[in-house]
Amino acid sequence: MKKINSLGYEVVFDNELDELQSFLIDHDYSQLLILVDRNTNDHCLPQLQAFIPDIVDYDIIEVDPGEENKNIDFCIGVWKTMLDFGADRKSLMLNLGGGVVTDMGGFAASTYKRGIDFIHVPTTLLSQVDASVGGKTGIDLDNIKNIIGTFTQPKAVFISNKFLETLDDRQIRSGFAEVIKHGLIKDKQLFERCMNVKLPVLPEEMVYDSVMIKNEVVLEDPTEKGLRKILNFGHTIGHAIEGYSLYHDQEPLLHGEAIAIGMICEAFISYRENNLPESELETIVNYIKGIYPAYPIDQAIYPTLIELMRNDKKNESNQLGFALLRSIGDCDFNKYAEEDMIVESLDYYNQVIK
Amino acid sequence: MKKINSLGYEVVFDNELDELQSFLIDHDYSQLLILVDRNTNDHCLPQLQAFIPDIVDYDIIEVDPGEENKNIDFCIGVWKTMLDFGADRKSLMLNLGGGVVTDMGGFAASTYKRGIDFIHVPTTLLSQVDASVGGKTGIDLDNIKNIIGTFTQPKAVFISNKFLETLDDRQIRSGFAEVIKHGLIKDKQLFERCMNVKLPVLPEEMVYDSVMIKNEVVLEDPTEKGLRKILNFGHTIGHAIEGYSLYHDQEPLLHGEAIAIGMICEAFISYRENNLPESELETIVNYIKGIYPAYPIDQAIYPTLIELMRNDKKNESNQLGFALLRSIGDCDFNKYAEEDMIVESLDYYNQVIK
Repeated sequence: MKKINSLGYEVVFDNELDELQSFLIDHDYSQLLILVDRNTNDHCLPQLQAFIPDIVDYDIIEVDPGEENKNIDFCIGVWKTMLDFGADRKSLMLNLGGGVVTDMGGFAASTYKRGIDFIHVPTTLLSQVDASVGGKTGIDLDNIKNIIGTFTQPKAVFISNKFLETLDDRQIRSGFAEVIKHGLIKDKQLFERCMNVKLPVLPEEMVYDSVMIKNEVVLEDPTEKGLRKILNFGHTIGHAIEGYSLYHDQEPLLHGEAIAIGMICEAFISYRENNLPESELETIVNYIKGIYPAYPIDQAIYPTLIELMRNDKKNESNQLGFALLRSIGDCDFNKYAEEDMIVESLDYYNQVIK
Repeated sequence: MKKINSLGYEVVFDNELDELQSFLIDHDYSQLLILVDRNTNDHCLPQLQAFIPDIVDYDIIEVDPGEENKNIDFCIGVWKTMLDFGADRKSLMLNLGGGVVTDMGGFAASTYKRGIDFIHVPTTLLSQVDASVGGKTGIDLDNIKNIIGTFTQPKAVFISNKFLETLDDRQIRSGFAEVIKHGLIKDKQLFERCMNVKLPVLPEEMVYDSVMIKNEVVLEDPTEKGLRKILNFGHTIGHAIEGYSLYHDQEPLLHGEAIAIGMICEAFISYRENNLPESELETIVNYIKGIYPAYPIDQAIYPTLIELMRNDKKNESNQLGFALLRSIGDCDFNKYAEEDMIVESLDYYNQVIK
């Protein structure tokens, strides 16, 4: 069992989740609410129940799976169910699921009766490496991701490799994009290790190493005033594409698939605007495009994408901010790019996937 | 000009609001958003503009006045308007209005893009004495007051006596209930001064003294784990009556009017369960019923009221918690009363107003 100390709480890596049961027994919560989506209700809840055999008294709140349901309407549904269950200020919310469940559950808990405790048991690779640390909670509004939310830390996070067995190949690849990102922005060695991984099988310690990198960044800048912005590499453009796809595609891109596109575009901008060597750009692009499906972007939607970028919560005063690589393993933040450059990077993406 | 130091910010008492203008000039906000309701837009905004002549660049967000509109639907409207105005993380929200505007504006700001700065310019007596300190933000859901919210401090609060001139007699009386409460729970002298006030005219320093009392309590217990619960005197029953009235009466009770009823009931419970002397009970009841209109409570709605109390966010584990007076100026918290006692107190209220 390994542990990482984050902002006032621990991330516990333990495939059997022994410590989860002790956590629940040791804390004097008046009530346990378990938030799941339909998928984790079917595939992960039985496993969770087996991990905590002595805990038999809890209420289940189920939401629909999928990013398109991480919105205020579902959140209102969660709040109302908490009310129906008579949840009080000493209740605990356990979020069992991927990013939709942990983001929305964290937000619902952090605002219910002005805040109750919550813990995460992330069940997807993406949420294990991304949502475990950082204290971001949030929901989408009007197609804009995580625009409403809080910075609130969970009381603990419990990560078990066992849940990853419930995922399909596509979800593993999606989560893996954040591992690649952590390598690109801060750990060249991790990036090189990524290149040797034969997906969908992933060495267990890579999850730990990836959380470790994110945690180092978050501890230094919890509320994203500076350094933490490097975690947004690939996300300025990636989020816009994800938001667009969510409302226009029959089968929308997964988060990591959109971030992979964003990383290619933003690596290109890094090359043009931030001295990323051309050879490294090629290494990155060839590697990423080998893992993720091509997603041709119609030039007609560029203006829509740029509008979505402008609405991204990280953009201040209408400037389009980027985290840009200087080299593999080294990233700058508070960089800005003109619209023309963004258009060029989208063209570049369309070019390289041909 | 007087100032009170609260949790990391100042409450500035200044009829001309000179410091508000310097605050806005000195801080490097990218954008100023002013949240008003229809009433404060008409009656207070012109005055505010006259106070800050050098500030000409801002956007106005208007909501409908009234507690019945302090709900998630209006809050979504505020969030969307903030998006439309392109508000970024360095924007400032100025809440100009009563408790509905300060509670909802505080909540909208504290969750927009995971939190932007906000300041309050409270324009009602109630919001000046109650919402200025404490950092509570919130909205109602399903008839339950402030059930969704956060503890987030404003960056500053500016109080001008001039705004009180825009209020009618009924609103002054409503706000005055919180001044009476502050006397009852912590300052016998203030309560005695209240008894000498000829409403609707209120000595200016009473607002300051009242905020001072609340601030002392809040500084000691910011997130209401203990002592702060004394501020709920009159509110367990009062909130339920307010919630009920809001959805059933053509012209609902104002907050302070409901709290006045709650204070009579809870003073009775204090007498029966917490050794409040009978003579003090009589002093309190005779004084309060002389100020506020009688509101006969049909016995048929008692179960509904008790249900609303159970849902109150301050109640833990389904126990009905109360702050109960020991004597005038001295209050205990974490007291519990049985349903029968609550019923008796409502009967008592109906009796004394006859």
